[in-house]
Amino acid sequence: MHYKLTVQYDGSDFLGWQVQPQGPTVQGALEEAVAHLFGVATRVVGAGRTDAGVHALGQVACFRAAKEIEPSSVQRALNALTPDAIAIPEVAVVADDFDPRRHASSRTYCYRLWRPHWRSPFWRRFVWHVWGPLDLDAMAAAASLIVGEHDFTSFQAADCDATNPVRRVLCSEFTITAEQVVYTVEATAFLRHMVRNLIGTLVDVGTGARSVEDFRAVLELRDRQRAGATAPARGLCLMKVSYEDREGHGIGEP
Amino acid sequence: MHYKLTVQYDGSDFLGWQVQPQGPTVQGALEEAVAHLFGVATRVVGAGRTDAGVHALGQVACFRAAKEIEPSSVQRALNALTPDAIAIPEVAVVADDFDPRRHASSRTYCYRLWRPHWRSPFWRRFVWHVWGPLDLDAMAAAASLIVGEHDFTSFQAADCDATNPVRRVLCSEFTITAEQVVYTVEATAFLRHMVRNLIGTLVDVGTGARSVEDFRAVLELRDRQRAGATAPARGLCLMKVSYEDREGHGIGEP
Repeated sequence: MHYKLTVQYDGSDFLGWQVQPQGPTVQGALEEAVAHLFGVATRVVGAGRTDAGVHALGQVACFRAAKEIEPSSVQRALNALTPDAIAIPEVAVVADDFDPRRHASSRTYCYRLWRPHWRSPFWRRFVWHVWGPLDLDAMAAAASLIVGEHDFTSFQAADCDATNPVRRVLCSEFTITAEQVVYTVEATAFLRHMVRNLIGTLVDVGTGARSVEDFRAVLELRDRQRAGATAPARGLCLMKVSYEDREGHGIGEP
Repeated sequence: MHYKLTVQYDGSDFLGWQVQPQGPTVQGALEEAVAHLFGVATRVVGAGRTDAGVHALGQVACFRAAKEIEPSSVQRALNALTPDAIAIPEVAVVADDFDPRRHASSRTYCYRLWRPHWRSPFWRRFVWHVWGPLDLDAMAAAASLIVGEHDFTSFQAADCDATNPVRRVLCSEFTITAEQVVYTVEATAFLRHMVRNLIGTLVDVGTGARSVEDFRAVLELRDRQRAGATAPARGLCLMKVSYEDREGHGIGEP
């Protein structure tokens, strides 16, 4: 049996998605719960390897099991066996060849800026506190420049191991609420730290530290040294992983 | 100078509003910050003494200071001097005789129920997880019975020291979102544990453990033994303290 999980987590107290010996990870917590339920060590494969402190509302993960258990029972058991900072709102059985990472057609991330000069006791784990004036029109204009296929070398982490830095961005826009500026970006895939480097540079555009034209030049120069600082992990949340090519064949009951 | 603060807090890690020797309190944290700013030990008086674990978006608190500092500077300083779980979104100077507790015309609380059978990593500190079927019409009908002036003896804590258990309720209703049922109740004032005892009993009506008529009987019998269990503190939030009789004279610049 091949199970597909939708996973939510408050990433504040995890060292990211991927298992590592130094401390708790989301993948590690899920693998422990699956091992407890099925009685055998099991690899859980995620669609995206989120960094330490990054959150998820729509991470997707898969694992294989020899035993057949009803998806609704798997869901209840895994919710009971994982820490409070993790939830599994959906479990489905998928085709054996389904790969949550390679078959993903796009990922959507949100990055939240908290705007009042006072911080929020309720949002503090999920936002980057950026107060003071921001030119939101300039930020939106710069954000729109990355839509389409581009080489994102300027926005990848120095230690990013991707062999091809070209990504297709489907959506890059801001929405504004009373207290927040929320950046939403959807792309076929992302380079390491790409969203956090983008928002760091977009905030520079907002404060006037750089112009929209400068942002365009950074993108075109393909040089990580030119972009702004990496924004804090806590503002970032993986909202959704889409599988458009697979809808109707392969996802759901096999 | 008499300063009035609007105060927000995540009550999860506090032993409630009121100063006590056993551990951190919101009042204690504010008094420490005020003492640091003005250089002298200062009493901070709150409109409501919220219990351990209860949150606030609109608590009101006052203190007196011999030194005159601009309200906007006081606000910035207190936000910097208090822990992350506390924020002060507003500071004003008020008339010397203003009493945040005695002059309050009403308090509004919200109590949040989380409905999916899986818990939320993001809301977990701020909701009571109540899954399974709930008859929301019956809950609304029961909630409406407390509007007006009533003796709330049945819903006060055993150790409540109020001499008069009569309170006037102005609003008592439910709103429903995709994942939550939110109870909003506004009253001139509340008895100790009143909202948590009300929602505990209203959930009993929702599950069918009691009828709307039984809820009415509990209210009329004025006997704490008859009401339901006290709901967890974490679902409760003090949303607003109103000063209707004082608007326009006394609040704001004196």
